[in-house]
Amino acid sequence: MTDTASTPKADHLPSGFSLAGVHCGVKKNPAKEDLTLVLSDRPATAAGMYTKNKFAAAPVLLDRNRTPSAGIRAVVINSGNANACTGQRGIKDANAMCSDVAATCGVEPESVLVLSTGVIGSFLPMERIRSGIKAVANALGKDDDAIHSAARGILTTDSCTKIVHRVWREASLFGMAKGAAMIGPKMATMLGIILTDVRIHPTTAQRLLAAAVEESFHCIHVDGHTSTNDTVLLVASGASVATVTAETEAAFGELLSDACNALARSIPADGEGATHLITINIRGCHTCDDARQIAHTIANSPLVKTAIAGADPNWGRIVSAAGYADVPFDPAGLELRINGHLLFAALRPTDFAESEISASIRSEKEVTIDLSFTEGNGNARFWTTDLTSEYVRLNADYRT
Amino acid sequence: MTDTASTPKADHLPSGFSLAGVHCGVKKNPAKEDLTLVLSDRPATAAGMYTKNKFAAAPVLLDRNRTPSAGIRAVVINSGNANACTGQRGIKDANAMCSDVAATCGVEPESVLVLSTGVIGSFLPMERIRSGIKAVANALGKDDDAIHSAARGILTTDSCTKIVHRVWREASLFGMAKGAAMIGPKMATMLGIILTDVRIHPTTAQRLLAAAVEESFHCIHVDGHTSTNDTVLLVASGASVATVTAETEAAFGELLSDACNALARSIPADGEGATHLITINIRGCHTCDDARQIAHTIANSPLVKTAIAGADPNWGRIVSAAGYADVPFDPAGLELRINGHLLFAALRPTDFAESEISASIRSEKEVTIDLSFTEGNGNARFWTTDLTSEYVRLNADYRT
Repeated sequence: MTDTASTPKADHLPSGFSLAGVHCGVKKNPAKEDLTLVLSDRPATAAGMYTKNKFAAAPVLLDRNRTPSAGIRAVVINSGNANACTGQRGIKDANAMCSDVAATCGVEPESVLVLSTGVIGSFLPMERIRSGIKAVANALGKDDDAIHSAARGILTTDSCTKIVHRVWREASLFGMAKGAAMIGPKMATMLGIILTDVRIHPTTAQRLLAAAVEESFHCIHVDGHTSTNDTVLLVASGASVATVTAETEAAFGELLSDACNALARSIPADGEGATHLITINIRGCHTCDDARQIAHTIANSPLVKTAIAGADPNWGRIVSAAGYADVPFDPAGLELRINGHLLFAALRPTDFAESEISASIRSEKEVTIDLSFTEGNGNARFWTTDLTSEYVRLNADYRT
Repeated sequence: MTDTASTPKADHLPSGFSLAGVHCGVKKNPAKEDLTLVLSDRPATAAGMYTKNKFAAAPVLLDRNRTPSAGIRAVVINSGNANACTGQRGIKDANAMCSDVAATCGVEPESVLVLSTGVIGSFLPMERIRSGIKAVANALGKDDDAIHSAARGILTTDSCTKIVHRVWREASLFGMAKGAAMIGPKMATMLGIILTDVRIHPTTAQRLLAAAVEESFHCIHVDGHTSTNDTVLLVASGASVATVTAETEAAFGELLSDACNALARSIPADGEGATHLITINIRGCHTCDDARQIAHTIANSPLVKTAIAGADPNWGRIVSAAGYADVPFDPAGLELRINGHLLFAALRPTDFAESEISASIRSEKEVTIDLSFTEGNGNARFWTTDLTSEYVRLNADYRT
């Protein structure tokens, strides 16, 4: 789901950056970009949020040690191969990608971040990637073509690019993401790269990114599978005069959250085989963590997800999922609404118009599930997909 | 899955009990039993384990206060209606079922336990149930017909009865269960009722049942949905001379665990739309809780479950699911086997024969996933199903 309200134009790319995407041969289809490079014309502030999976991929291990930083010059991303479960050779290959970018662009190897997404357990085709790095460095630009080829170069099973743009004072913010599910052997990943030209301290950047990710990329769900490569980066060139200070931090943090939300939401909106994007709003829990846990339990229930696929306003599955979320609440205080219709309150289903609500689910791609509690002020919002036979078909088909 | 190795005969029913199942009209199909009664000819010891769902059904609320006990005389179970999300009227109806059984059988109302399973949110058809209680009390017996009609009377979407029988010293043990998934509006439930004629103290019975349930009924997974009515009861008439003492407790506990395992396993074996029963063995974790959490995370992954449905030995999905289970372990120590074939070790996939393993998954209904770690002695075993388009079809079809 492209954020069409603000499709970025060349003049929207934050100053200080150039970028491009090319096909180098990791993916078989020569029409598909598989290598993206982002270059900052000066040392940039960079913050990162990474998967907590114990089998974190080689590029994640590398980047984790390089952020937060005040001296990042480039980010190189390949798609089609995740460089995960590749042992010492994978680490060596990730380092070689950084060294090659450094040599080609005239920067230090330690100033380069590297991301990979795609098949796991296979070694990178390093010769192709090395030629590709030269090609993508030659292609660097700031125009629409450069932006869109870069956004395409990070995709795997996505059906479309996922980009977002925001303006803040004299600065701007451009983000691109990928992710549709974890599909094997193309074990897709969630990647997000957010570029801005504000001036910001690395510690502040890390704090604001962590907060923004907590309520955006951490609140989406397709199949509950945390990949080996999930990464969100914030890279700030500092090329504009706009500065994030103690006074302006809250405002910039809000903008960053807003951009992360737009990108995060676009991932389940493009969920594999999905026919509905489901927004789950939880209000009135004791804590936000409680609210998030209830939202996640509902999002994780195949019974809830199949009910929405079938346009079935099945209050029982939703209410009982909340009931086993292992969060304390007074059941008598729970109210459930689907698309605004009250379905359950005071421990009982209401006398709702089932066919009308079913029709409203069937006719729209988006469905809203609201649950309110009477415990406190803990709220959460979660995005997930429905579960269809098409998802099962996509993921059960034997890969050979 | 009937435990055919020990299909119970009349002479196997623990002494002191009689039972029956009849059709009273909760279910529409007159050929299907929907009311089961178990009567003990003397005050029996009873222990219970109940759902932790916040929307626990009326019968659960009642039974929780009545176990453990040394004075239970009867258990009445209806299927087709769960008496859940029915408020005060539900409590009144559950009490009325106990009172009717008490009046009909000449026992105290407080000595009767009640279980329900089926649709939630609807009130019980009390007139039919009241006539049914008279009919089922008249039908009480100890023969094969009585046993099998009783086992059928607790089923909802199950494709077969689930029964188990064991002999212990001069005593015996008979168990029956139901459960296939939570399917709405027939929000099925897991019920287990284990009868024995040993003499046992209520506190001991409760402790042994809790331990047995922990590693059996708590280690099965179809769709991860904990219902409003889940209940396992142990009822011991004490009509035999075999006694559970400090010396014999361990042996009886083992027998009880064994019976609970056989019943628990039969639930995912009958999983809705499932084509495979998956056994997940986890060995060598720091604690058993850690092992169980890893097993549950794998069992809960739709990507793992769809891969097995497609006969795909997708090591990446299994290994990465273990990796995000939020349990500490050294990834380098993990070894993964499917049906005995080593697929992953030392952080890398092995050079396994993919087509051979795929064929072994395709040709058998049972699949074994073994993961070993190098952290300690914490082990767990979990049973789950694969995830098929048929499951989605069964659960997405609009109910009207």
